[in-house]
Amino acid sequence: MPEFQARNPAYAQRVQESFDRQGVMALIGARVSRIAPAECEIQLPYRNDLTQQHGYFHGGIIGTIADSAGGYAAFSLMPEDASVLTVEYTMNLLAPGDGELLVARGRVLKAGRLLVVTQVDAIAIKGGQETLCATLLQTLMTMHGRKDL
Amino acid sequence: MPEFQARNPAYAQRVQESFDRQGVMALIGARVSRIAPAECEIQLPYRNDLTQQHGYFHGGIIGTIADSAGGYAAFSLMPEDASVLTVEYTMNLLAPGDGELLVARGRVLKAGRLLVVTQVDAIAIKGGQETLCATLLQTLMTMHGRKDL
Amino acid sequence: MPEFQARNPAYAQRVQESFDRQGVMALIGARVSRIAPAECEIQLPYRNDLTQQHGYFHGGIIGTIADSAGGYAAFSLMPEDASVLTVEYTMNLLAPGDGELLVARGRVLKAGRLLVVTQVDAIAIKGGQETLCATLLQTLMTMHGRKDL
Amino acid sequence: MPEFQARNPAYAQRVQESFDRQGVMALIGARVSRIAPAECEIQLPYRNDLTQQHGYFHGGIIGTIADSAGGYAAFSLMPEDASVLTVEYTMNLLAPGDGELLVARGRVLKAGRLLVVTQVDAIAIKGGQETLCATLLQTLMTMHGRKDL
Repeated sequence: MPEFQARNPAYAQRVQESFDRQGVMALIGARVSRIAPAECEIQLPYRNDLTQQHGYFHGGIIGTIADSAGGYAAFSLMPEDASVLTVEYTMNLLAPGDGELLVARGRVLKAGRLLVVTQVDAIAIKGGQETLCATLLQTLMTMHGRKDL
Repeated sequence: MPEFQARNPAYAQRVQESFDRQGVMALIGARVSRIAPAECEIQLPYRNDLTQQHGYFHGGIIGTIADSAGGYAAFSLMPEDASVLTVEYTMNLLAPGDGELLVARGRVLKAGRLLVVTQVDAIAIKGGQETLCATLLQTLMTMHGRKDL
Repeated sequence: MPEFQARNPAYAQRVQESFDRQGVMALIGARVSRIAPAECEIQLPYRNDLTQQHGYFHGGIIGTIADSAGGYAAFSLMPEDASVLTVEYTMNLLAPGDGELLVARGRVLKAGRLLVVTQVDAIAIKGGQETLCATLLQTLMTMHGRKDL
Repeated sequence: MPEFQARNPAYAQRVQESFDRQGVMALIGARVSRIAPAECEIQLPYRNDLTQQHGYFHGGIIGTIADSAGGYAAFSLMPEDASVLTVEYTMNLLAPGDGELLVARGRVLKAGRLLVVTQVDAIAIKGGQETLCATLLQTLMTMHGRKDL
């Protein structure tokens, strides 16, 4: 595994502030549970207004916190004057999102000057048991000179 | 383009009923705006609690209605005793989700006995102008013998 | 559909010259059958050394000509001093690659300054009948200032 | 990591025999370098007829051995009367395929009765130095009752 270093010592605060500007995170009740250079974890407690037709977490909601977990893993490495943009992601759904808590763990695989590639695992926790319910590969772009405000 | 026929004459009602069981659709304010064999369109008006950090529709929310639009395009072709499951999707974000209304238009590319592949275009409408903001390829599975309830 | 214009009047010659430097295209027997701004088609006649275990075109070989078809569709729009790099692609296999001829048709969906997104359809032709055997979404990067030589 | 068990004690021989029927593997010079339950590694020495326009391994060729590595990782777990079919894959290219040897390492993430999901890392080795040049997520289908011959 490569080691990554944050260029901005205030990376954790920057991630939290940007996360707090994502209106959808408050709507669904998600929070940042861990942030480190090249890593970000987001947690989302179950609610029955986050579901697909069988009562599990909707795949799109899994994708929503996973997209942000990967995005902020990437953002943690970016310089102060940059913002982050998702280019694309692929999500493979491996098991139903069945649990009291959904956790998305993003980590950077490759950080180029412009493009960053991450992998995000989404885990459903039910009665203490963890199940990998989705995995994503994601490409992001560093927008140099466009400070995230 | 191939032509598709619904096997279940009540397909439109079935789609609407299943959609109504997706708790997240009520939460975000989405509705089915069109359903036809192998096609489904979902609309979502803008709200500032559906956004990423720059005030546009969050990519995950684009993915959420696109996942359902593709899923119900596929489901419209399925027999009465079956339900639908998303296997995976890839979403390429082509432009910011900037508009008063987001529309996801799903259509079936290939319908096999077990697997169905769809493509979904997500369009942001701003002042009457349509912008393609994302396109997805999605794989779904037909769960025979598991009626969607 | 958006209309695209080539910035380099010699785009067709540039595509052909770059294609001719791809050693693998000669190995497998592929050729450019059509080039236009934002579009590229590549043809590959069947040979039994291009196959997977059931005698059809190997998925990776479908991906190989599709990657180049999308890449050259993108490259046709790039300025003279740029080269093209594939960032990622997703390929959905819709039917076996069963035919005398495989044709990959790439077209640009969105051309940004740095990133270009294409879609490529791969068609197997057997006894005059066309079957869509795969579709791809692909992201490419424009490498400004790195002329393709 | 989950542990996987092969249902067919002759899985390694079956993989090798199926690989030997893939005409394209002989054409490009690839060989199976390791097979274990849920894992398969394929190696491909560099040749200048396997390249893209800058002289590196063509992305499609990286995809070709990666597709087979993931496919045979999945196939190693399948019952004797089944064959394997690739449904889709996503490949993110992280670095140029620059080296004397390309190695694709596939492993199963989730093995369902019908669908199997794998991840494949493609590594370029140059002067003893390993570089991760691509990673793939792949979905495969078990074709029960269709013995691979």
